[in-house]
Amino acid sequence: MSSAPVILAFDTATSNCSIAITRGDLHEGKVVGALSFDSGVTHSKRLLGAIDWLLQTTEMNIDDLSALAVGTGPGSFTGLRIGMAIAKGFAHGKGLPLIGISSLDAIAVEVRSERLTCVVMDARKKEVYCCFYRCEPGSRTVRCSDPAVMPPDKLVALIKEPVTLAGGGVRVYNDIFSELLDESVEFLPWIVAPQAANIGFLASGSLESGNFLDIDSATPDYVRSSDVQLSLVSPLTSG
Amino acid sequence: MSSAPVILAFDTATSNCSIAITRGDLHEGKVVGALSFDSGVTHSKRLLGAIDWLLQTTEMNIDDLSALAVGTGPGSFTGLRIGMAIAKGFAHGKGLPLIGISSLDAIAVEVRSERLTCVVMDARKKEVYCCFYRCEPGSRTVRCSDPAVMPPDKLVALIKEPVTLAGGGVRVYNDIFSELLDESVEFLPWIVAPQAANIGFLASGSLESGNFLDIDSATPDYVRSSDVQLSLVSPLTSG
Repeated sequence: MSSAPVILAFDTATSNCSIAITRGDLHEGKVVGALSFDSGVTHSKRLLGAIDWLLQTTEMNIDDLSALAVGTGPGSFTGLRIGMAIAKGFAHGKGLPLIGISSLDAIAVEVRSERLTCVVMDARKKEVYCCFYRCEPGSRTVRCSDPAVMPPDKLVALIKEPVTLAGGGVRVYNDIFSELLDESVEFLPWIVAPQAANIGFLASGSLESGNFLDIDSATPDYVRSSDVQLSLVSPLTSG
Repeated sequence: MSSAPVILAFDTATSNCSIAITRGDLHEGKVVGALSFDSGVTHSKRLLGAIDWLLQTTEMNIDDLSALAVGTGPGSFTGLRIGMAIAKGFAHGKGLPLIGISSLDAIAVEVRSERLTCVVMDARKKEVYCCFYRCEPGSRTVRCSDPAVMPPDKLVALIKEPVTLAGGGVRVYNDIFSELLDESVEFLPWIVAPQAANIGFLASGSLESGNFLDIDSATPDYVRSSDVQLSLVSPLTSG
């Protein structure tokens, strides 16, 4: 395992700032060090300091890193922009390949349910970001939908079989999910935010296959358009 | 939730040093901040500094804490002694109640399998620490054995039904488990070390019921006797 790639990963898609240094993949790898804290909207203030602290505490050097991995969202637009900007600067400055991992996927790998899994993140404006997954034999989690944004009751209407719900949106819309879904639903409300360690583990696969972000052009996966974009587009489309 | 108890928790049972500040319980609570790092045997060198860093980063004050919780093992004797000593000093110095949570239980709550769960930690000397659990409806994990120490092949002989194996001992003795158990076994080798956040969540129940450690007399739960104890006892018992 000592030759397995060492990856510095972080996620700022929610108010939880998560940072990890991982070695290897989910099944055989290990977390060299990890930290997370509820940072409100001040990711920019504390992210780089926390990365420094983690590198020092684990006695790791930038030169030990094989790649940098960042959670690409969806989630807080401001959080995602700050995360992507810092990831690009860091990867460019240190000459490291940059890998993007969906923040929804990072939550999904924690679930490992034998049922259909739906990851639900709060998208504000009475909507949720969501994506469906299945856990295959060998505990490999695969997507079976595209990430989407919709009101929680519309999501409920899509669910036709026993399901496991996880992610920060589960608590926020617990009333709606409890009322509209029957007893066959399983709630994992404690799986809230993407863990950077899972982003690092997933990124080791991308590193192997050379699936990197282009540092110049990469953007977060917002899933929905920002208010600014909508306000720019709507006069054209509604005219 | 803002009135839920805030608990500072840590675990030093393995080479992974884990620290967390939690608010509330597993189902409704949240992780205010958490960190972990592979510290080898130098827990004493870095634990207090890391606690300070986490308190500062989460902008929490000692006065915000309702209790201190410590992983009581089993695990590394040196790690457990350092953890318990620092926990006692901290709790005594700050006048906080001290709560002990089994390091095996802290791993078990992460598993949430519908099968029988066996948590396996490496005990060195070709043995494992182990304990069996079931996940009840409502995702409450309950013990169905006492913690024990034994060779891995003896543990395998105790398993008579489909089982989920988790904990750091799974990887160490993967060959034995794979050879002696049939396909009905599920391995979760990525659930390795006790997470302090789970210790904090479990401790919120102990806080409610007033189940505290006595700061003067509390000891880790070593499960087996140390070499020193054995060497003191054996001349008497073998004579």
